[in-house]
Amino acid sequence: MKTKLNELTATEIVNLTHSGSVTAEAVVRACLERISEREEAVQAWQFIDPELALKQARAIDARSFRGPLHGVPVGMKDIIDTADMPTEYGSPIHAGHRPHMDAVCVALTRRAGGIIMGKTVTTEFANRFPGKTMNPRDPRRTPGGSSSGSGAAVGDSMVPLAIGTQTTGSTIRPAAFNGCFGYRPTWGDLRITGVMEAAGSLDTLGIITRSLDDVVLYRDVLAGTSPQPLPAAACKPPRVGVCWTQFQAQADAATRASIEDCAAAMSKAGAKVSTLELPPAFDAVAEVHQKISSFEFARARAWELDHYPEKISAVLRNGRLKHGLAYTFDEYREARAAAEKLRLQLDDVFAGYDAVLTPSAAGEPPLGLDATGSAAFSSIWTLCHTPSMTLPLFSGPNGLPIGIQLVTRRDCDRQLFEIARWTAALYGR
Amino acid sequence: MKTKLNELTATEIVNLTHSGSVTAEAVVRACLERISEREEAVQAWQFIDPELALKQARAIDARSFRGPLHGVPVGMKDIIDTADMPTEYGSPIHAGHRPHMDAVCVALTRRAGGIIMGKTVTTEFANRFPGKTMNPRDPRRTPGGSSSGSGAAVGDSMVPLAIGTQTTGSTIRPAAFNGCFGYRPTWGDLRITGVMEAAGSLDTLGIITRSLDDVVLYRDVLAGTSPQPLPAAACKPPRVGVCWTQFQAQADAATRASIEDCAAAMSKAGAKVSTLELPPAFDAVAEVHQKISSFEFARARAWELDHYPEKISAVLRNGRLKHGLAYTFDEYREARAAAEKLRLQLDDVFAGYDAVLTPSAAGEPPLGLDATGSAAFSSIWTLCHTPSMTLPLFSGPNGLPIGIQLVTRRDCDRQLFEIARWTAALYGR
Repeated sequence: MKTKLNELTATEIVNLTHSGSVTAEAVVRACLERISEREEAVQAWQFIDPELALKQARAIDARSFRGPLHGVPVGMKDIIDTADMPTEYGSPIHAGHRPHMDAVCVALTRRAGGIIMGKTVTTEFANRFPGKTMNPRDPRRTPGGSSSGSGAAVGDSMVPLAIGTQTTGSTIRPAAFNGCFGYRPTWGDLRITGVMEAAGSLDTLGIITRSLDDVVLYRDVLAGTSPQPLPAAACKPPRVGVCWTQFQAQADAATRASIEDCAAAMSKAGAKVSTLELPPAFDAVAEVHQKISSFEFARARAWELDHYPEKISAVLRNGRLKHGLAYTFDEYREARAAAEKLRLQLDDVFAGYDAVLTPSAAGEPPLGLDATGSAAFSSIWTLCHTPSMTLPLFSGPNGLPIGIQLVTRRDCDRQLFEIARWTAALYGR
Repeated sequence: MKTKLNELTATEIVNLTHSGSVTAEAVVRACLERISEREEAVQAWQFIDPELALKQARAIDARSFRGPLHGVPVGMKDIIDTADMPTEYGSPIHAGHRPHMDAVCVALTRRAGGIIMGKTVTTEFANRFPGKTMNPRDPRRTPGGSSSGSGAAVGDSMVPLAIGTQTTGSTIRPAAFNGCFGYRPTWGDLRITGVMEAAGSLDTLGIITRSLDDVVLYRDVLAGTSPQPLPAAACKPPRVGVCWTQFQAQADAATRASIEDCAAAMSKAGAKVSTLELPPAFDAVAEVHQKISSFEFARARAWELDHYPEKISAVLRNGRLKHGLAYTFDEYREARAAAEKLRLQLDDVFAGYDAVLTPSAAGEPPLGLDATGSAAFSSIWTLCHTPSMTLPLFSGPNGLPIGIQLVTRRDCDRQLFEIARWTAALYGR
């Protein structure tokens, strides 16, 4: 085989383990080897126990049933409960905590034959205060956050799949910064039982991969349904709205060039591409998002606030927690009502488009490890509960990855996958 | 004092502890005494440790800060995480499980000066298979479910307050069957972090009390905001829609008479009362509710299904789990879309009414302890995310309680409280 096992996609691994040409154990060994070579420089893992991973792999190899993820190693963001590994939520308050049962997404991954490789680094409580992870392509740069370790581990070929979560841009951004595919599902589709709440009315799981097929496959596993590959035939050229959003000024030259290049390629391939200006109501997104997420986050942390206030970072105390505790219930309620109105308005906007093309982030992963980059380009779509994907189709002046983001209407995740495949194919992906 | 301390409402207790005329310890002792007299006959508690309750009370008495629930003993449904008590979800699978942190609602209760008295009995995973609790007024009868122990403990004056949860009718029904006030909030208002998921897109907390003021007080505590009493002046006589729903045939004669009596009293007091026929689309409620709740429930139980299938009751295996596992993701998605449409339609219905008057249950608590009664009369309102309350204003042919249910539009919880107060006053409550 030319490619090393750790560089295969989940779909490729499953083909090999189902045909019997490769064992789960061999796949896990290859990934462990990669991790042992690279972990010192990347620091993607909050917890990893090679023996535990190999033990799972041998148990999978011993099964007669071949599940849809048979032998696929998966990284789990460390805000997701695992019965056989610690789960620390990126906080010293929870150091060494070991849940008594698996989160739903972990149980469904194991049921499908996946192997929980370890726990990936998260920022503190999936908020801003960064963990130890560096960008695998340049250790001076952030891997993005809050799903920092999940992005870095997949981008550096340590595992083919990882789960992140997203409350603002915590999956799309680290996926983009690590040259990965990243997917945020329609809000509510995938159970989040056993996943730490950041802000429940916005939180979703996120999937980070090196292949679009893997997103499609893993999403069905996490929905607890039988995987359905996309139809063989490509979709019709879509009607695409290029949306710069009110955060346009944040996008650097390389990001602007990438979106323009993609829009031109789409148009050349028959797509109906036009500029989409969101109605002025969407200017309120940042404020509405901030009120909802901070109000809920501050209450979700009630126990930590009352028992270990001194172990909470200043960034969090003076940021989301401070804001969240200051808002009144009426302000929160009004923000939630405003969000619901924006969701219905966005449904109307989508009547004229099959998908939106928009930046995944402001540019290449920025220098510095004290922050994880701006989540602004995800805030509208996250608030509006739409599905979105980042596709690793471009790079910037430093040769570092730049993603482009596609968004569809709520509940149109399969349509998103088809349009993403059509778009990636324009770039030979 | 005439009334025993265990018979006081939370509001009365707080008045006494704030003025210094009674200690939290004295209140807890009175409640413990009642429990020790009555628990053999009622079996409301899954876990109770008198020493632990007294220790909390003494710590509260030692505080200089007087919180809004200072010295109030509270029962917590045993699907709610407590760091100092086991949490077993009504299932032998989780026997002896002790969470490492408190659920948000527990932390907020303690912050306000409340005392976690113990864990109240729940049906298995808050579904149908009953726990050990009997109706305090007649041990041959069900206390309702799934918040069985919470209803019985409050109804039997063991504690003034208890938390339940509601995915169909699991707070309204046990509150009604135990002669209590029961409140289900607008979906999404109160954080449910640390509460076992039954079906996330329907689950809420529920509050069970013996006084309407207590509902208003505790709801603000659980929202994590400063308590705001209702305005002193009564609200205007409301526009009331009497809604029998498509489940009308289930309502027995005493229930029908209670609703008619209440409607007449309201009308006499100046309310504009008329019959409300829901549009035919609402006939689909039972099926839509069943699809959503079962699909989500079956996935939320992934870990238990894969590790301890033999410890799951036949009722649950052949009921909600079996249905839930059989539905496709598309069926689930369609049901969710249908529910969202019904919610918007119900908003329109409410344009003509301030509140709906409807049965809380089919009648008095039924004979038999192998089931917990029909939840049908809550299914429409739960699915539609509206707030609702049951008021203990009537009794049936056996002298057992019959509640009437009031419902308002989503986000109008304060309006619900005001109309409930206006209604209760008609009966001298």
